[in-house]
Amino acid sequence: MLMKKYIAEMVGTMVLVLMGCGSAVFAGSAAGVVSAGVGTLGVAFAFGLSVVAMAYTIGGISGCHINPAITLGVFMSGRMSGKDAALYMIFQVIGAIIGSAILFALVSTGGHDGPTATGSNGFGDGEMLQAFIAEVVFTFIFVLVVLGTTDSKKGAGNFAGLAIGLSLVLVHIVCIPITGTSVNPARSIGPALFEGGAALSQLWLFIVAPFIGAVGSAIVWKIIGSNK
Amino acid sequence: MLMKKYIAEMVGTMVLVLMGCGSAVFAGSAAGVVSAGVGTLGVAFAFGLSVVAMAYTIGGISGCHINPAITLGVFMSGRMSGKDAALYMIFQVIGAIIGSAILFALVSTGGHDGPTATGSNGFGDGEMLQAFIAEVVFTFIFVLVVLGTTDSKKGAGNFAGLAIGLSLVLVHIVCIPITGTSVNPARSIGPALFEGGAALSQLWLFIVAPFIGAVGSAIVWKIIGSNK
Amino acid sequence: MLMKKYIAEMVGTMVLVLMGCGSAVFAGSAAGVVSAGVGTLGVAFAFGLSVVAMAYTIGGISGCHINPAITLGVFMSGRMSGKDAALYMIFQVIGAIIGSAILFALVSTGGHDGPTATGSNGFGDGEMLQAFIAEVVFTFIFVLVVLGTTDSKKGAGNFAGLAIGLSLVLVHIVCIPITGTSVNPARSIGPALFEGGAALSQLWLFIVAPFIGAVGSAIVWKIIGSNK
Amino acid sequence: MLMKKYIAEMVGTMVLVLMGCGSAVFAGSAAGVVSAGVGTLGVAFAFGLSVVAMAYTIGGISGCHINPAITLGVFMSGRMSGKDAALYMIFQVIGAIIGSAILFALVSTGGHDGPTATGSNGFGDGEMLQAFIAEVVFTFIFVLVVLGTTDSKKGAGNFAGLAIGLSLVLVHIVCIPITGTSVNPARSIGPALFEGGAALSQLWLFIVAPFIGAVGSAIVWKIIGSNK
Repeated sequence: MLMKKYIAEMVGTMVLVLMGCGSAVFAGSAAGVVSAGVGTLGVAFAFGLSVVAMAYTIGGISGCHINPAITLGVFMSGRMSGKDAALYMIFQVIGAIIGSAILFALVSTGGHDGPTATGSNGFGDGEMLQAFIAEVVFTFIFVLVVLGTTDSKKGAGNFAGLAIGLSLVLVHIVCIPITGTSVNPARSIGPALFEGGAALSQLWLFIVAPFIGAVGSAIVWKIIGSNK
Repeated sequence: MLMKKYIAEMVGTMVLVLMGCGSAVFAGSAAGVVSAGVGTLGVAFAFGLSVVAMAYTIGGISGCHINPAITLGVFMSGRMSGKDAALYMIFQVIGAIIGSAILFALVSTGGHDGPTATGSNGFGDGEMLQAFIAEVVFTFIFVLVVLGTTDSKKGAGNFAGLAIGLSLVLVHIVCIPITGTSVNPARSIGPALFEGGAALSQLWLFIVAPFIGAVGSAIVWKIIGSNK
Repeated sequence: MLMKKYIAEMVGTMVLVLMGCGSAVFAGSAAGVVSAGVGTLGVAFAFGLSVVAMAYTIGGISGCHINPAITLGVFMSGRMSGKDAALYMIFQVIGAIIGSAILFALVSTGGHDGPTATGSNGFGDGEMLQAFIAEVVFTFIFVLVVLGTTDSKKGAGNFAGLAIGLSLVLVHIVCIPITGTSVNPARSIGPALFEGGAALSQLWLFIVAPFIGAVGSAIVWKIIGSNK
Repeated sequence: MLMKKYIAEMVGTMVLVLMGCGSAVFAGSAAGVVSAGVGTLGVAFAFGLSVVAMAYTIGGISGCHINPAITLGVFMSGRMSGKDAALYMIFQVIGAIIGSAILFALVSTGGHDGPTATGSNGFGDGEMLQAFIAEVVFTFIFVLVVLGTTDSKKGAGNFAGLAIGLSLVLVHIVCIPITGTSVNPARSIGPALFEGGAALSQLWLFIVAPFIGAVGSAIVWKIIGSNK
């Protein structure tokens, strides 16, 4: 049944948001504090290893996008239909909301150490341009890795899942201090709904900027990856 | 001789408990302290890399479950007999106790830095519900990765061991601040026997919750992983 | 079109410099400070994972050198033409400058935590010999790994990208406290142009020493890697 | 020429000792200090990633033992001749001394942050038994992983290098706070010669205990890994 792949995207995005944002909620990485949490590097690994885990679990079912920006890049590269792309994105957002809901349940039933209760994305006063540049550029890099490593001729074969996941670790290492790192509209929408306030009013940036970056990836890969 | 696979499970679980819990015992991750130990992220890697190490060492002998919750999920997916499942679990628990005994010997013969002497699991006053949700959900995710990556048709082939081990790193990153992370009844039983007290009185949760999570994994994988 | 591989080298080196140096700029690893950044180990992973990401993305296009010292070693091993080697190096340097320019844009539009604004390399007063030895020896090791793992007969096949990237993590773990780690002239040139001062006046070392190390790698691999 | 494999072992052990011990010398992991170094987890990765790097570089030449305890285990498993085993060990020790000499040159020409100048192994007063148990047990686990993953029938194929290297990360995570981690007589001999004092007088333990552990691995793998 074709429905399987949409459910797989929903489950995969749920895992990404729950585990990635969950690591931030329990990481206790506030400046000056050494706590029981894993710190910023641990949060970077949590997001990336969620992708590694899901890539090898549901990759054979849906391709494991679990990110609307990736789905846009794959669609623009002519590798999937518009209808599938739209349904992928819808189920990704549903999965993200479920992930945030489970995290909300965890935070509501006990303590947590981190400086955030939802793992939402955001930027400081007067730093919107920095955040915008960061999300465009880092999504461009991340989706370029996805398009390159999963290319049927020049790609990385079974190594793609590992390379993509480690690339997401990389992006988080650099970008967590800037915006907390989105590069994934679904990952920002889920927590913002539970956080409200600035997370909601700044949410547009974490939808627009990643989509722009993904368009750039599709264009650049068409230039350097084609066989002409 | 068929006995080999049970011994392999015993050795593998011994390594997981000794190294994973051992990292916590020597990690010195108490709040506010920077010590000679590796900290919380290092403990997360210790548990996950134990699985990577054992998966590629004994995977060809027993499949390397080294976790009764995984064995339950594999059994429920119709991939092994009930007799084998029961014997796997028994030898896993024996291995866990041996691992904890070796760790007890190490702690008895010299100093250690960490806030725990056994690496037992537990939860704070009034946080039982949080612990229960966490252990159910994170075991569900972990065992889902196991069932998906080792699926004979849609799985990850030789990458399964790496993906499963890194998934266990991921689960520990998020869950160490909550319960210390079990998602594995054998891993909780060994240390609890040497720790006693709250570790013993709370032990039921670290047996019941992981088993519930594993049942969920088997059901969800039957839905999204089947070929119908 | 043959131009594709040069553009791929440019994009790959841009990613390496932007993400590697970017991690240092936002890492906040100054002595005595625990901040929102990832610390020194995170910077080491950023450089290495940039190589993993690019190796599996553009490896099928250009071989993913993204480092003039590697290109020199590959050229000396008789695996590429002199014209190609020269063009690779030129596009690598252009890519590095673009990477530093994007990082400059990020730093100019918002705050950053780290002790550096460009991620440039350098050494302390009276420590030039230490820096020189370090860059020669560590480049020798790094390029030896590249030549060995990509050897068509005795190499690591698809594992090469992972082994090379993790080797760069290794080199940074040891060498960040000494020079910040170059082992790559392009990676030093980009930031030095934006930093000026000592970064520019010390730049020669980070060009000469890595090239000497790479010559050593080509010689040693010829001795132990040949089939005679 | 057969000599190639001995030279490869010498180079590989040189890299392991220089990079592993070098990371400790520059890590600055003294209790209570957050410095420019990578800390204890970074040291663990340095040792393990040295093995990953060398396994995929010289694995096709010598098998990449770079550790006399591994060579003993491989010899006892009937996979190499006694003459080869002896020559492997001799060249490993020579490589280790060269690695320590390069590290001595680095420390002599500039500053370093860590609490050690050579990365030698040792144990505290009254903790000899703890150190002995630790080195026996952890070498047993490490060499068991080597024998299992490189088994021609039940092994891990190309994944062996990664699994073995990550196992060495694991062993260091647990054992650095106890002895600094040897599990490799050559790795202890090199630094001890440059450190002198207690490092020399305690050196016997780091030769005897790893060899005992390796004998255990060969016996256990004969039991669970044979095809009878």
